Order: sequence, then structure tokens, then C-alpha cells
Amino acid sequence: MTLINKLTNQDEFTGFYILKELEVKQTNGTPPKDYFDIVLGDSSGQLSAKFWDASATDKETFFPMDLVKVQGIAHTYRERLQVKISKMRKVTEEDGVSITDFIRSAPVQPADLMHTIKQTLESIQDEEMRTIVNFCVTKVEDKLMHYPAAKMHHHAFYAGLSYHMVRMLELGEFICKQRPFLNEDLIKAGIILHDIAKTEELTAELGIVKEYSVQGKLLGHISMASNWITEAAIRCDINLHSEKVICLQHMVLSHHNLGEWGSPVQPQMAEAVALHFIDAMDAKLQMVEDALDTTPETEEWTPFIRGLENKAIYRMKKEL
Amino acid sequence: MTLINKLTNQDEFTGFYILKELEVKQTNGTPPKDYFDIVLGDSSGQLSAKFWDASATDKETFFPMDLVKVQGIAHTYRERLQVKISKMRKVTEEDGVSITDFIRSAPVQPADLMHTIKQTLESIQDEEMRTIVNFCVTKVEDKLMHYPAAKMHHHAFYAGLSYHMVRMLELGEFICKQRPFLNEDLIKAGIILHDIAKTEELTAELGIVKEYSVQGKLLGHISMASNWITEAAIRCDINLHSEKVICLQHMVLSHHNLGEWGSPVQPQMAEAVALHFIDAMDAKLQMVEDALDTTPETEEWTPFIRGLENKAIYRMKKEL
Amino acid sequence: MTLINKLTNQDEFTGFYILKELEVKQTNGTPPKDYFDIVLGDSSGQLSAKFWDASATDKETFFPMDLVKVQGIAHTYRERLQVKISKMRKVTEEDGVSITDFIRSAPVQPADLMHTIKQTLESIQDEEMRTIVNFCVTKVEDKLMHYPAAKMHHHAFYAGLSYHMVRMLELGEFICKQRPFLNEDLIKAGIILHDIAKTEELTAELGIVKEYSVQGKLLGHISMASNWITEAAIRCDINLHSEKVICLQHMVLSHHNLGEWGSPVQPQMAEAVALHFIDAMDAKLQMVEDALDTTPETEEWTPFIRGLENKAIYRMKKEL
Amino acid sequence: MTLINKLTNQDEFTGFYILKELEVKQTNGTPPKDYFDIVLGDSSGQLSAKFWDASATDKETFFPMDLVKVQGIAHTYRERLQVKISKMRKVTEEDGVSITDFIRSAPVQPADLMHTIKQTLESIQDEEMRTIVNFCVTKVEDKLMHYPAAKMHHHAFYAGLSYHMVRMLELGEFICKQRPFLNEDLIKAGIILHDIAKTEELTAELGIVKEYSVQGKLLGHISMASNWITEAAIRCDINLHSEKVICLQHMVLSHHNLGEWGSPVQPQMAEAVALHFIDAMDAKLQMVEDALDTTPETEEWTPFIRGLENKAIYRMKKEL
Amino acid sequence: MTLINKLTNQDEFTGFYILKELEVKQTNGTPPKDYFDIVLGDSSGQLSAKFWDASATDKETFFPMDLVKVQGIAHTYRERLQVKISKMRKVTEEDGVSITDFIRSAPVQPADLMHTIKQTLESIQDEEMRTIVNFCVTKVEDKLMHYPAAKMHHHAFYAGLSYHMVRMLELGEFICKQRPFLNEDLIKAGIILHDIAKTEELTAELGIVKEYSVQGKLLGHISMASNWITEAAIRCDINLHSEKVICLQHMVLSHHNLGEWGSPVQPQMAEAVALHFIDAMDAKLQMVEDALDTTPETEEWTPFIRGLENKAIYRMKKEL
Amino acid sequence: MTLINKLTNQDEFTGFYILKELEVKQTNGTPPKDYFDIVLGDSSGQLSAKFWDASATDKETFFPMDLVKVQGIAHTYRERLQVKISKMRKVTEEDGVSITDFIRSAPVQPADLMHTIKQTLESIQDEEMRTIVNFCVTKVEDKLMHYPAAKMHHHAFYAGLSYHMVRMLELGEFICKQRPFLNEDLIKAGIILHDIAKTEELTAELGIVKEYSVQGKLLGHISMASNWITEAAIRCDINLHSEKVICLQHMVLSHHNLGEWGSPVQPQMAEAVALHFIDAMDAKLQMVEDALDTTPETEEWTPFIRGLENKAIYRMKKEL
Repeated sequence: MTLINKLTNQDEFTGFYILKELEVKQTNGTPPKDYFDIVLGDSSGQLSAKFWDASATDKETFFPMDLVKVQGIAHTYRERLQVKISKMRKVTEEDGVSITDFIRSAPVQPADLMHTIKQTLESIQDEEMRTIVNFCVTKVEDKLMHYPAAKMHHHAFYAGLSYHMVRMLELGEFICKQRPFLNEDLIKAGIILHDIAKTEELTAELGIVKEYSVQGKLLGHISMASNWITEAAIRCDINLHSEKVICLQHMVLSHHNLGEWGSPVQPQMAEAVALHFIDAMDAKLQMVEDALDTTPETEEWTPFIRGLENKAIYRMKKEL
Repeated sequence: MTLINKLTNQDEFTGFYILKELEVKQTNGTPPKDYFDIVLGDSSGQLSAKFWDASATDKETFFPMDLVKVQGIAHTYRERLQVKISKMRKVTEEDGVSITDFIRSAPVQPADLMHTIKQTLESIQDEEMRTIVNFCVTKVEDKLMHYPAAKMHHHAFYAGLSYHMVRMLELGEFICKQRPFLNEDLIKAGIILHDIAKTEELTAELGIVKEYSVQGKLLGHISMASNWITEAAIRCDINLHSEKVICLQHMVLSHHNLGEWGSPVQPQMAEAVALHFIDAMDAKLQMVEDALDTTPETEEWTPFIRGLENKAIYRMKKEL
Repeated sequence: MTLINKLTNQDEFTGFYILKELEVKQTNGTPPKDYFDIVLGDSSGQLSAKFWDASATDKETFFPMDLVKVQGIAHTYRERLQVKISKMRKVTEEDGVSITDFIRSAPVQPADLMHTIKQTLESIQDEEMRTIVNFCVTKVEDKLMHYPAAKMHHHAFYAGLSYHMVRMLELGEFICKQRPFLNEDLIKAGIILHDIAKTEELTAELGIVKEYSVQGKLLGHISMASNWITEAAIRCDINLHSEKVICLQHMVLSHHNLGEWGSPVQPQMAEAVALHFIDAMDAKLQMVEDALDTTPETEEWTPFIRGLENKAIYRMKKEL
Repeated sequence: MTLINKLTNQDEFTGFYILKELEVKQTNGTPPKDYFDIVLGDSSGQLSAKFWDASATDKETFFPMDLVKVQGIAHTYRERLQVKISKMRKVTEEDGVSITDFIRSAPVQPADLMHTIKQTLESIQDEEMRTIVNFCVTKVEDKLMHYPAAKMHHHAFYAGLSYHMVRMLELGEFICKQRPFLNEDLIKAGIILHDIAKTEELTAELGIVKEYSVQGKLLGHISMASNWITEAAIRCDINLHSEKVICLQHMVLSHHNLGEWGSPVQPQMAEAVALHFIDAMDAKLQMVEDALDTTPETEEWTPFIRGLENKAIYRMKKEL
Repeated sequence: MTLINKLTNQDEFTGFYILKELEVKQTNGTPPKDYFDIVLGDSSGQLSAKFWDASATDKETFFPMDLVKVQGIAHTYRERLQVKISKMRKVTEEDGVSITDFIRSAPVQPADLMHTIKQTLESIQDEEMRTIVNFCVTKVEDKLMHYPAAKMHHHAFYAGLSYHMVRMLELGEFICKQRPFLNEDLIKAGIILHDIAKTEELTAELGIVKEYSVQGKLLGHISMASNWITEAAIRCDINLHSEKVICLQHMVLSHHNLGEWGSPVQPQMAEAVALHFIDAMDAKLQMVEDALDTTPETEEWTPFIRGLENKAIYRMKKEL
Repeated sequence: MTLINKLTNQDEFTGFYILKELEVKQTNGTPPKDYFDIVLGDSSGQLSAKFWDASATDKETFFPMDLVKVQGIAHTYRERLQVKISKMRKVTEEDGVSITDFIRSAPVQPADLMHTIKQTLESIQDEEMRTIVNFCVTKVEDKLMHYPAAKMHHHAFYAGLSYHMVRMLELGEFICKQRPFLNEDLIKAGIILHDIAKTEELTAELGIVKEYSVQGKLLGHISMASNWITEAAIRCDINLHSEKVICLQHMVLSHHNLGEWGSPVQPQMAEAVALHFIDAMDAKLQMVEDALDTTPETEEWTPFIRGLENKAIYRMKKEL
């Protein structure tokens, strides 16, 4: 069984994979024939594949997100590796494989991530702030167990959103120790709430974003989270005009830093400035780490990364 | 009694005015002496003024927003007209003057503006939308009677905010007739709600913005209005996830059109596109009208207008 | 006979259409074969189509803008509907169809649009202004009967340019009533002249832009219209340095508002500010209306609209 | 007699100067006294000066642009050299000084500049182009004898506009020799016409820009020159749609290169690209040369230059 | 003895301060008199002050950076606190005060900062990298003991540059632990070298930037540090084309992230991305901390901070 | 034998060409077949070509940069001319053709270009400057004999880099004569050094850029050239802090003018301003000239040129 990121040109192979994408297309020939344009995935990455001469039965058998056993050959096409599938069948119970083995996941178990988030939540000393954060986390706890943080940008994997939160909490804890004038409650609450409405902005399955919801497009997760805080305060009987409520909303609203990046107000509290940079540093370094992980080790350069001024990242020689 | 916009160089005059600004300053001489740096206002405009040799009594007598009787002389200083005050006393009851005679106001009575707004509100056919708009208007009805729409940008006068709403409603009604595919309820609701949270973003007195509130700076009127809609829906038992609530919030959130102008999302509904242009057209034309009104008719050009790419406006000769 | 915007996947159909585009291409097979890559159009919209195995005779028979009778099947290809043509012949007299039935048109007859434009022109009270506008309209009256207002951006249909003018004139009339300080002659003249030189900037046929002329690319319709005003004044013996001539040129030159949008000067007259927003509002709302009209009613979202920050427009549920 | 750029701190001096600016101001003292805020100029530069205790007679005697004999002392005020005038009288015939000795001028005589421009004009081989250029030059020949090229930006001195033209013609001649594919007629015509309408965009006296005309603000010299070419063609019976006329207008319209720099179209001919860079190089290098000339030689750095990204220019040590 | 940040309106006080700035100016009176325009400083902040009627002796006695004993009164002038000095004398030995008590300093002793930097330097495992970093640190060790990191932007205090380095090293160490794929040697070296050439870009005294050097303006500290690495490699016989040298130069060159922020190349290594964000986070949070520290605790808002989108920072109420 | 820029639709032809690019691809048919996707080149231009049914032998015979004899037919595909190759063989000695006949070259012999560069170098009067320039030229003399100046932007042909230098030197000589205050040594040195590190930023063969080097991507030619000057000074024992060294580095670092164009500092010397415009003018005019040369003379417009605001260039009719 061969991992996708180990395949090289002309490798013949057999293995289990997930059909991350599957589209029926037609050749340009006369008459045109149906074929499958596929993206094969496993935990190590993904690869474009073709399955020529898809029969009527095939078209009723295979669908996106199916687990399949594939026999094929890897070859280079337009400078990129691609797979030509010669045989394919759906996985059966006897194969003893589980879908979670085939998707990219956070390196920490979702339950552990949720545990950390809840523990942090409990450690918020201000009772009203804790109540508001708890209201929001409880609302979407199920989704926090598996949602990615974004479509492609960063943390685009199973439980990527809560992994992003937890890593930010680590960084936040360090910064609060280094600069004790920061209000630690506000930093913790801001980190947990800043992207929490992505759970309703997007729909996701197995760590893959399916689409943006109508609400997500029309309001965006930043304004949605601000509305959630309003809702939490009302439902839990907290004064809407209290400084806490306003400051929590400010943290969420300003965390993209600039208007052209989606924030209607700019950071105007020490903790809001900190939140923006904690978020940016974690997201950007994760993009770099993901790109290096999913680029074959024989390559000096990763592909261009849109979130990094569309630059590729250079991988130093090991001996350095 | 001379209106401010009629004064010219070397005019000696007596009249009643409001002290729009008053600051105690000191001359550079030795020893330095106290004087008042003043902005005199009346319904026709405002003018910078000096009151030299302010005595200790004077300093305890005169304060901003006082009505005063002034004797002085107008003279040109650094190419701008200025007043040197020779005598000044506070207005007494016998003078028979009222503060509302001294401030710039909307050309329609506040009560009439409120009447139009409420009538429009009642004409919204969708019951839940009407309920939400009514909740928000009721919340700040007092302030709508007198707040300006902005500090200096546009409609910076008594009842300027509700005047802006009413003029936009007129334009909105026209557009809905011209393009019947537009949802008129949504246009009406969007116009009434788009700037309504300015009443808590700012504090204003007599049509003059005093300052931005903490909440106003940290959240901004756009996000505040979105939160108010959330609050209205909860308090009035309307489904927070209904399309109406989301669309109303989208109208408000997107009405500045671009991220760099303060909108966290861009217009993505026909009515939101219309709202943005109705708002822009009314605001920009009012800036032009205000500038022409407060510039002496003998001047060909108004001062530079920040909201119009910092351009001055040319006044055509009458015979044209 | 099936309208294009009613076709759905796997529909077999026969009908009359216009060949909006037709290009001879070759398959990648060995040996490659010729086929037609076609855009079929009718009054309801347009659709991509293929006609495989085009013979030598076919290549001498079919050309762009031909009316044809087509038998084919609609199918989904790469998530977009496409037509595979099985039979195609040119329309004959007996078919009794006329080309004007197959193109998108303004919802008002061109003659009526021209009537409105001329009536408005006659209502301009200043004689010299009226003379200049009349000179320009007369120059290109034929083209005003059918030119679109743009290639794809907005009003891209038969008589779209004069329809845009007429709708703007309606809006202009409203604004002049709402703000009587505006010079109505200048507003009328500005609306009629602002895009009039598009008739020489572009060449168009049946409401479809064919290409930009050399003059159009090197000068642009804004500067061309300014030159036309100069020409009109000279030919009609009007003083080139009179305020009227200069103001009319200013209206035209500034109507794109900013240098990066093509205006060499920014609006510096009340009427020029109004013209810019009247133009913008009409163009943007027409984009929205066109997009909603040509998107199947079953779709929640229109395609992305380049002129609206590349956003798609959401169509509310009917019950709202 | 001391040149302005030779004065240093605490120099007492007597000399003849021009009053480039004179404004009556009042001291802050009680009672305030009148004084003159003056800019003294001579051919070497200019300096701020004060004349305290201006009498009523003084106020009726001295006006801007007067030549005066001054006795004063130079002193440093807020890090800048300034003059305190102790005595001042108007120049009389006996003094034998002429105003042209006191203003910055092009280093070549205006008559010689005009001679070069006319000779170049005559050397344009295409008769119609030559006719158009001649029409425009003849129209404003008087002003070309003395107008500056800009208010402060570059060539802001007597006959600066024609000097700029002549220097560009030299550079244009070199480029045409280096790249023979360029049309020399078009380069010559473009250089002479590109800024020629500045003569009506501005009013200037003695090489100093007084103000922008209404026409200049509303149309700008770029569009004005385009209109002049239209006028020239009509008056001289040249076909308005001929390629020559269009290309000449394109040269003028595109010479600022980008929309945000005022050009409604971008260069789309080889000669238009050349014209833009010939203009830019001459203007920028003149800014540098002017800044170095008018900065005392003891200074390492010139003041900041707005037209050069607001950078100061470093003057290398001589021995280099 | 009163600390500057404790003074309030109308306080009469006596104390020791440093003359951070002192300029001789003249009053506008007749005749004008000399006075000192002063900036008084101590370890808690700084304040504008006037010393009226400066005698000839005074002008030969007091100079910037002198320690003085001052008797004065604080008063509010144009909404800002200012001091009027009634008596002033230079500090004598008997006063027993030392200049280092009067300037803002890093909260860690310079010697300790240097110790940390050197220890970190020693811990770089790659010998050649260590050699290069050591060469650069040794070159400017003296200045690292006291230079600020910037003129006003951030860390503008005694030993601010090395304090910035040390805080970044702490953050770098955390990030390397959190993301072990990062090359720790490169992070350490990048942090120490990124701003090291500021020691030759600027001249500074007592933690205050005096001016930019010619070299600093013409090359900038980013390119200078790149040149230093070249120099270090040559002097220490390290291969100029080795990956280490190139990577170190890349770290330094790219650390401002974007071209418009001064970096000729954008980060293209994981460590370079990390360095940029470590630098940004430390600089921005220090700006916030400095602004809050030097703003009286009674103020809700700090002044506007240029480096934070020109926003003011809000200080939460304590009870939160 | 037919030159590429003379081919038109349906021409059958035989000739010698170079395989500028050759990639093995597969048809979409079943089973897919191998074919060559080729770019054929000669001294007149280049053209896309297909060689269908590439055999196993073919795949071991033909490689990029081979000279071949081709028999084929030109045909229009998607509005662009393309070649279908029917026969192809490698060139043999008997064919008597040389690779240099098949590539675009500077119109001057490389040896002559180098001669001019060296002569100019010798004419630099300052000994140390001359030494530094000589060190850099000597370092890469081989590459200067054949490198292009860029990948596609401008001077993308054999010896394009040294041709660019020589043309700039001509222009520089003219400017120094026109403005004698410029330091001619610095202009000469700046021109020779400004792009010299492109020889290590890129790898090129036969005038075609193969790729950017790791060093080229991580440092860029601007910073690399600055480092070379440092190296030259050290190796030749010239004071690194001398004004000459700093000024030479400034010339190189600032020649792209703005940060967003890659310069870490902006021009701050007269000669640096001149260098930027000399470079820009030569590069832009060469782009225009190249585009006109390689566009068939029957075409009015060149393709869009990325370096010229993505505009096409219009070719005037000859008779003009």
C-alpha cells in the first residue's frame, strides 16, 4: 500500500484511497466517451487521477467521499504527477479500513483539543466573560470536533479549527507571561471566539469545506460572532452595554486588523493587537508547515502559497 | 443684527450669537495674558473670533454653548475673515432670543421628519421586518429628533440624521417604482436602520457632534446596528436564522460598500446595492449643497470638501 | 421551440437560434477533425454548443450572426450546461423568423427611446447648450437606435445605450425636483452627452459589441465627447471659452469620478457630482437586474459580477 | 549688494530685491500692531522676511511684485534663515535696476527658446501636423515667452515652459537617432503640444504662477490641448478623423502615463511611450538641479522634493 | 521632587530634569525677545516647557542634554499640559543626581541584555553561522549597549535595540519549541542580525536618535546588514556562495515582508516568515505598552499611534 | 526555407529550426497517445507546433535546444497560427547550419558590446570606482557575452544584457552632456553595475532564461550587486565606508525607484534619479520595438505588453 506523497513517475501501485473529488467528464473524441476526473486522497496528501471509459454502472457506483481500492500507474503530465487508474472498486467491510485513516487531520485528537479549549474556558476568571464564551462554545461543540479552519488557506484539515485555537492559546499564554499588563481573560476569550462562527459560515465534512452558507456569505464569520456575543449576553442576562461585552465584540470584530481584510474596526486595545498577531503568526506558519509537509522531500521549493504574497517556500538542505 | 454669512471685511456690528467653541489661551507676550479663542455661530454659518484681555470674571462667565450679545469688528486675517470682539455679554430673558434660532437645522421640522419615518415604518408589509425596525426606532426616538448625521462630513446639523433618512426614503421610493423587482420593504427597512446606531456611536448636542463614545470607537455604528437587529429579534421572538433577519443585517453591514470604507461584507443583494448608492448620492449631494450654502455668494469656489476627493465646487454664474 | 434559459440537463430539443459566435476548431485525436465551437443565442440568453464533425460544406455554410434551426441535446459539462448539436441548417424565408426575435433588447422600443431623448433635448432652455447637444445627437442618431452601452459590463443589449440614457433622465428629473438648486439643463445635457461617443469608440451590431475602434482605444469616449463639444461649438458659432461650453465638457470629462476610472478631472460642480452618481446607480442596478434575469430562477445566486467587486448576487426566497 | 543665497545668520546687509509676496498681518499683542509678512526674492532664491510696525503710509506704498531697496539683518528662526527688515523703500529710476534682474529665469533667452521651437516646428515634414502645431503655438506665443512650466513642481521660473520644451526636443532628437523606427514628426509635435495648454490652465506673471483658471481646474491642460487640436483641425480644414489628428491627440492625452496621474488613456504608440519618458526625465532631473542650485553649497542635503517621492537629494563631496 | 507623568494642571513644582530639547526662539512682540522652547524629560516621560526672557548668559549656559533643576508651574495650553519655568539652574555635583536617572531605559540592564545576546550567539550550533553573527555583534558591541531601536516608532529608549532583540529571542525560542521543523540556529541568527545595522544607520545618544547617517539614508539598515554578512564571510574565510550565507542574508533582507515596507525580497523560507512575525509582534506590542505607560492613568485613551494604523488604544477599567 | 514570421495560414513549408521547447504530452483519446508539444524558433520569432504520434525512438531523439529540419503545415487554431509537423529530423553536419543562426540576438556583436563596456569602464576617471566596476565585470565577463536582460520583459535575446548596458551608456553620455552637473563616473559605473548580478540571479542559455537560481530568488539581483560591491572593495583594499562605495551601492539599490518595484531605498542622488530614468526609458522603448518587430506587419496592433500597463501598441499607417 503506497502513500500518495511517496509516488513517483512510472510507479505502478495498488492501495486504498478516498475519492476527494469525482466528476464525470467527456473526451473530445467522436463519439465522446465518459471518464472520471478524480482527486485521490489519503492522509499524506492528494493527487489528480483519471479513470477512462467509465461505464453506466461505474457512474452509479462511485461518488465523492467514497473509499476505494485502486490499481493504477503514476505518470508525469504537464510537469505534474498524475494517476491513470486501471482498476477501481469500492471498499468492503473485509478490507478493514476506516475513513478517518484517509483524511488529513490535526496531529492532536479532537477530544484532546476540546478538552484543552474547555479547560481554558474554565480558567477565565471573570464570570460573565466565561459565561459568554461558554454559551458560544456549547452552541457549536459538535462542529468544533471536526471543522477545518478554512477552505484552502490554512489548517484545512480535520479538526483544523480547534487545533488552530489550541495552538493560539499556547502562544497567547506565552505572550501574557512575557507582557503581564495584558488581560489574560480577554486574550483567552478572544482566541476562542475569533473564528468560532466559521462553524456556521461554512459547511464542512471530514475536514473539507463543502461550501459557504448563505448566512456566511451575507454576514461573514466576524459579524456573526459579534451577533452571537449579543445573543449570549441577552440569553444569560448580562448587560449588553457593559464594558466586557463591548470589549469581547471589539476583539472579534478587529482581529483581521484592516478594513480590506474584513474587519469593520481596527484593533484599539492592547489585547486586540495581540490577538491579531497571534492569529496571523499561527496561520502563516501553519501554511508554511503544511506546504513543506505535502511537498515531496526531493523538491527544493513548495508550490506558490496564496496567503504568503503568493511566494514559494525554500527548503534548506538538511546538512545546514 | 447681522448674520454671520453677510459679514465682510471691516464691518462693525452688534448681534446675538452662540459660542460654538470657547477656549482660554495665552498670548506670547511677557507676561502672557489670557484671551478667548472663540467660534461664533448662528443659523447662517460660523466664524472664528478673538476676545482679548479676558478677565478672571470673564473666565467664570462664558462657556461653550452660551448665547451671547456681541459687539465687534470683522477683519481679514491670513486670507480668512475673523472677528475681533470689543464687548460681549450673556443673553438675558429680556433679549427674547432662543437657542434654536442660532443653530443650523434641517429645513424640515424634526417632528415632521419623525412622522414620515414612522409612517414609512408602518407601511412595511412584512410583519417581522416591521417589528424589528420599530424596535430599533423606538429605542432611540429621542435622539432621532435632533442628532446630526456626522461630525463634519455631511448633514452636520440639527436633525440631520433623520433628514438624511427621509431624503433617502424619497429616493428609495422612486427607485422602487423605476425598478419593481426590488423588494420595497427591504429598501425601507435598510434606509431607516443603516445609520441608526450613530445615535449611540456619537454624543451630540444641538446638532453638533461632541465626541465618539467608547462603544462607538470600538464597534462602530455598522456592527452596532447589526447587534441591535439580533437584539430586536430575540426580544420580539423572531427566528434569528430567518432569511429576513439575515438580509436586514446584510443591508446594514454592507452599506459602506468596501472593506476600506468600513463594511465587513460587500453588497450581495439587489437591495443592498441600491441602498449603498441611495446613501452615497444623498450624502454627497448634501455635502455640495451645504458647501454652496455656507460659502458667500460672491465666491466662485467653495472650500475643499474632504468627502469629495478633497475638491472645491465651482458655482456657475447665474445667467447660465 | 425551447428558450435557452429554460433548457435543463438531458433535454432534447429543436428550435431557432442565432449563432452569436462560431469558431472552427480541431479535436486532439489523430488525425484531428474539425468541429464548430458555437455560442447559441436567443432573446432569453445564450449557451455554449458543439457541432462535431463539421464538413467542408459546413465550413462554407455557417458564419457568426446567422440564424439557424438546430436539433440537439443539452447536457452538463464541467458544472455548466452545454449543447451538443446533432443537426443544424440555415433559416429560410419560409421559416418566417426575424433576427430581432433572437437578441436581447431594451424593454422599450428604440424609437420610443429616441423620442424621449429628443423631447428632453428640446426641453433644454439654454439655447446654446441645446444646440450643442442637438449637434452631437444628430451626428450619431442612427447608432443610438441600436448600440449597447458596453461590451459586457452593463446594458449590453440592443439599444442599451439609449435605454441607459432614458433611465438616467428619469432619475435626473427626480433629483432635480428633490434638489432645486441643481441646474436642470446641465443635468439633462450631461446625461445625454456622457457616453454618446461610445458610438464611435465601439463598433456594434445587433446590440453586440464587435470591437473597439482605433480612435476608441487611442482617445476613449470621454475625451472624444469633449472634442465633439468643441466641434459643435465651432460649427454652430458658439464661443469656445463661454462658461457653458466649459461646464458641458467638465460634466463629460469628470463623470467617471476618479483618474483610475478614466476621468482626467474630478467632479467640481454640483451637477457633475450628481451625474456621476446617476450614472453609477443606473449602471450597477442594471447589472444586478440583468444578472438576476439571466440566471435560472432555481438558482439562489447569480454568477460573479465583475462590475460589483466580483460578487455574486443573492436572490431572496419569494415568500419574503 | 548681497545675493539671497549668500546670506548667513547675523549678516547685516543692504540690497535690491523683489517683494514676491507681501501680506499685512497683526501681532498678537494688545493692542495688536500691523506688520508685513514678506517673501523677498532675487535671481538667486527667496527668503522669508518681517517688516515690523508697518505704518498706514507703508500699507499704501508697498505691494507684491514691487522692487525695493532693503536694509536688514538675517537671523535663524526655527532652524530657518529669516530677514528682519529695518528700512525699506521703493526703487526709483535712479537706482538703475530692472525687474528681470530679480527673478529666476531659464538659462537661455526666451527669444532663443522661441526660435528653437519655431525652427523645430518648421522641420516637421508632414504638412498637416505642422499646421496643427503652428496653430497652437501661434495662439499662445506671447505666453510661451515667459510662462513657467508649473507652480512649484519643476521649471518654476521665467520662460520655464519653453525651456522645458527645448530641452525635451534635444532629448527627443537623440532618441529618434538612437531608435530610427520612431516617427520624428510625431515626437516633435508631441513635445511642443504636450503642456502647451498650461498657458490657459494657469495665469502667471514674471515666471510665477498666480492661480489656476476656472477652465484650468474644470478641464485640465491635457484635455484642453486635445480640444485645441480639434479646433486647429477644423479651422485649418484638416480631416478630424485622420490618423494624424487622432495620434496627436493620443500623444497629448496619454503623456501622464496613468489615470491616477491625470491621463484618461495610457500610451499605446511607440512615440507616446517615448514622450512620457522624455517628459518625466527632463522634469525630474530639473527638479534635482533646481534643488541643488537653490540649496546653500554648505548643505549636504536639499530640502525634501515632493515630485521625487518626497526624498531629499544628497550632494556628494567635491573630491569624489 | 515630581515625576513628569504625575504633573497636573496648575501644579507648582521643583525638581531635576534633563533638557531633551532646547531651542532659542523669539516672541512676536516688538521688540521681539528671546525665550527657550524646551522639552523637559525624566524617566517617566517628557513635557513641553517655556522659559521666557532668556538672557544672554542663559543662552551660553543651557544646552540640550544638560541636567537642570527647575522651578515651575504646569498649565494646560491648547488641551495639552505644558510647563512655564520660573527658575532654572544647572545641576552641580552636590545635587548627587546622575543622567541615567533621567532617561527612559529598557527595564533590563544593558549588561544583562548583552549577556543574553552573547549566550544565545554561543548556542548557535552551526560554526560558520555563529562566526558570522559574532563578527557583526563584535563590530558594534558598544552601541548595542545603549542604542534605541527607532526614533519614535517603538523601543525608543536607552538600550531599546538590544532589549528588542532579547524579547524577540524569548519569543523565537517559544516558537521553535512549538514548531520543531524550524531551524533554531537560523531563527537566533536572524533575530540578532535583523536590525543590527541600525547602529550605523542612526546616531543616538542616551537612547535618543540624533539623526540618520548619510550611509543610513542612502543604503538603509536592511541592505547594510546584508553587506556586513558578505564582509563577515570574506574576513572569516567562509564561502560566499554557501547556503548559510545566502539564507542569513535572505532573513535580513526579507524581514520587513513587503517591498513598500522596505524589503527588496519577500520571505521565502519558513524561518524568514517566522522572523517577520516575531519582529512585528514584539514591535507592535511594545508600542502599545509604551503608549499606555506614558499616558496618565486617568486617561481612557492613549494618543494616536502612527505604527498602529494611527489608532489610539483604549485602556479598560480596572475592575474588568 | 521559410522564416517563422513569414508563415501564414495553410502554408506548407520545409526549413531548419531550433526546438525552443519540447514536452511529451498525451492525447485524451483511449488509449492516450504520446505527442510532442513544441515551440519552434528561428531568428525571426517563434511558433507553437505539434508533432503527433511520437514514437519511442522519437522520444529518445529529440530534446529542447536541438536544431531540426522540419516539414509541416501552418494553420490557424484558436485565432493563433500553429504548425502541424509531418516530418522532423535532427540537423547533421552536412546541413551546414549553426545554432547561432536560429536565435534572436542583439543587433550588435557581443564582442563589440563587450569592447564598448570595457572602453567605458577604462574611461572612469576615479581609480577606486574603476577598480570596483572592473572587479564585477571581470567576475562575469563570459556571461555578459550572451545573457539576455530578462525572461520575457525586455531585451530577452542573446547578449540582450550587454546590449541594454551599451544603449544605456549612449543615453547616459547624452544626459551628462546636457546636464554637466552630473558626475559622469557615477553614471557610467551605475549603468554597468545596475543589472550585472542578473548573471547569477538567472541561468540562461542561447539568450533564453532557463530559471532563477536559489540565490536569485532569495536575494535578488539588486541586493546581490550591492554585496558584490562590498566584496570588490574588500578584495581590492578599498575603504568600505568611503563615499564612493556607498554611492555606488546606492545607485544599484535605488534603480527600481520604488519599494514595490524592488528597491529597498529610493533615489537620493541626482545620478541615481538619472539612472532610474535611463534604465526605464531604454527598457520600455525596447519592449515596444521588440513587440513591433515580432508582430506581422499586416497587424495594426501588437499583443498586450505586460511591462506597459498591459497595453497593446498601435502601428501607424506608413503614409503618415
